[in-house]
Amino acid sequence: MKPRFEYTVHATDGMARTGVIKMKRGEIRTPAFMPVGTAGTVKAMMPESVRSTGADILLGNTYHLMLRPTAERIQKLGGLHKFMNWDRPILTDSGGFQVMSLTELRKITEEGVTFQSHLDGSRILLTPERSMEIQRMLDSDIVMAFDECTPFPATEDQARESMELSMRWAQRSRNGFNSGEEHASRTALFGIVQGSVYEDLRFKSIDALTEIGFDGYAVGGLAVGEGQETMFRVLDFTMPRMPKDTPRYLMGVGKPDDIVGAVERGIDMFDCVMPTRSGRTGQGFTRRGAINMKNARHKDDTRPIDASCACPACTQYSRAYVHHLIKAGEILGAMLLTWHNLQFYQDLMANLRDAIAAGKLSEYAASFRAEYASGDIDPL
Amino acid sequence: MKPRFEYTVHATDGMARTGVIKMKRGEIRTPAFMPVGTAGTVKAMMPESVRSTGADILLGNTYHLMLRPTAERIQKLGGLHKFMNWDRPILTDSGGFQVMSLTELRKITEEGVTFQSHLDGSRILLTPERSMEIQRMLDSDIVMAFDECTPFPATEDQARESMELSMRWAQRSRNGFNSGEEHASRTALFGIVQGSVYEDLRFKSIDALTEIGFDGYAVGGLAVGEGQETMFRVLDFTMPRMPKDTPRYLMGVGKPDDIVGAVERGIDMFDCVMPTRSGRTGQGFTRRGAINMKNARHKDDTRPIDASCACPACTQYSRAYVHHLIKAGEILGAMLLTWHNLQFYQDLMANLRDAIAAGKLSEYAASFRAEYASGDIDPL
Repeated sequence: MKPRFEYTVHATDGMARTGVIKMKRGEIRTPAFMPVGTAGTVKAMMPESVRSTGADILLGNTYHLMLRPTAERIQKLGGLHKFMNWDRPILTDSGGFQVMSLTELRKITEEGVTFQSHLDGSRILLTPERSMEIQRMLDSDIVMAFDECTPFPATEDQARESMELSMRWAQRSRNGFNSGEEHASRTALFGIVQGSVYEDLRFKSIDALTEIGFDGYAVGGLAVGEGQETMFRVLDFTMPRMPKDTPRYLMGVGKPDDIVGAVERGIDMFDCVMPTRSGRTGQGFTRRGAINMKNARHKDDTRPIDASCACPACTQYSRAYVHHLIKAGEILGAMLLTWHNLQFYQDLMANLRDAIAAGKLSEYAASFRAEYASGDIDPL
Repeated sequence: MKPRFEYTVHATDGMARTGVIKMKRGEIRTPAFMPVGTAGTVKAMMPESVRSTGADILLGNTYHLMLRPTAERIQKLGGLHKFMNWDRPILTDSGGFQVMSLTELRKITEEGVTFQSHLDGSRILLTPERSMEIQRMLDSDIVMAFDECTPFPATEDQARESMELSMRWAQRSRNGFNSGEEHASRTALFGIVQGSVYEDLRFKSIDALTEIGFDGYAVGGLAVGEGQETMFRVLDFTMPRMPKDTPRYLMGVGKPDDIVGAVERGIDMFDCVMPTRSGRTGQGFTRRGAINMKNARHKDDTRPIDASCACPACTQYSRAYVHHLIKAGEILGAMLLTWHNLQFYQDLMANLRDAIAAGKLSEYAASFRAEYASGDIDPL
């Protein structure tokens, strides 16, 4: 019988680990990158194409799905997996972050967050209990606790108040999750560490969450404008205190070099819209840095975006063609570049897993950073 | 050795024929529907997906490609086939129709058409000779003569003048095509019959074109607002006078029932943006009429768009999901619905070919029309 949630570390290298999470709907190789399927679709991709890049798990957005087509409808239609034709694990966020970043007139109380829908202006109350209910109706495999993503910058007092609220909500999330017994018996719940840039608050948050008990622990409140240096500094003091026998997830991260640095610091899971969003706006990722496909330098270039990449954009098309599609606003441009970017991210994760298994992560990371920073895409 | 251009009729049924065109780059089963790849891409589709629907040939638009990325650039990059990753036949239009419908400040003289680019406002002269040169640079397999698509309505005098100009341009097109000897030795040139709704003018146009000699003959100047009844009436008197040993192509047609009626009247080839454009705006085609996927009636519908269709949209997704994607403006909605529509059109062509081969075209056409007109999509 497949386990509900079983995390095994296969190898470590410094703070970094590589391993596997086994769940009912499939295995997740870690460190893992989760493509974002905001509204029930990884934008511009067929799910079988997403899988072909090496993705083991997708992320779905509770906020978008609860508004349209609604969690009730998705449940009635057989759950998110069937709806979007993806039978492997799905992690859903709690909706909290996007309520704070995408809506107006929002108001936080002990009870939860009241906000106005960006679609029809209706007033909605999202609470830890309601977030758990929605994620259950979506039939999420990894449910995220409902928290407040502390804004950056925050004073220590603001960060403490926000973190303490999130910790009370974490307990209510745990209770709410547990109350859906059938769903809870075959899925997992992650807690989210807050505390902004304050070591003492991060430690208190870890203690509060481990006291409640979760299947995995996310680091929240980063990638919100603090910059890579600060993010790494927070990880430097936070990660050694995180539980070691459960996965650690850095939410909303990030750029390729953010991911490499965070893996070195012990992170096992990532999600970010960057590869998909960039694919729709003309930016491609390569070993030698990001490449703006709108740039006229590509218009006569018969070479692929990256000759070492196995994605269809690189094996079947020239930079000149992708440039033409992006300039002409053609949907196929978004399709090809998104595919390439997701392939790049998954290849990066595979390389990181291999480097950790071989005990050569620092060599790999150093060479990746040097090559990535070069920005010299011509030898690709 | 593969022939340059060889058309074989396998069976006839009334005026209708089914057969095959053999060319250097592949075979085209007729009656054939050509998906439109305006700017070097069948919008929202990978070329291998277009092929999987049963398409033997694509159409490329000279007007769009000459402006961006330019014919010179495509030639330098190895031709249109390599550029867009489609190794089967491509038919290119002459650019004339789109110059007239998409540009401003255009002026027709004996020499050709002067117009202003919709991209950068530059003034460009398109002549029969230049159109042939551009189509050669694109490495088109079936080159269309440069003509004036007579506007509708037109008086008999206007239609005569316009047709006679097109016939002089047809001779210049033939000369221009022949002058590219290497290209002409492995590709084909089609003439275009004009004459609006006037029987006498259509006959004169056919005589003028057959005197010059072409590999195939298109019927132009239809599907420009005259309505199906008038279009069929023009075909009724035009088709019996068309050469029988060469393919006959009805340009820019059309709706599924237009195609069925035109096949009954002896047409072998079609192109139309309808399946692709509709796919991007939420309209799906089915045996029981067009279906507006934006309509709220689909939001809880677990059934596929059409249970008898083998496309991914129908085998892997519900109407509810496609409705959700279209409402949310998701690219995957355009991808899935375009794929379905192209599959529908190619399935229709396959059914028409089978019906002609079986000598049962009128039965098939009658049953298609009754079912299509029903508009009752619920039993699908």
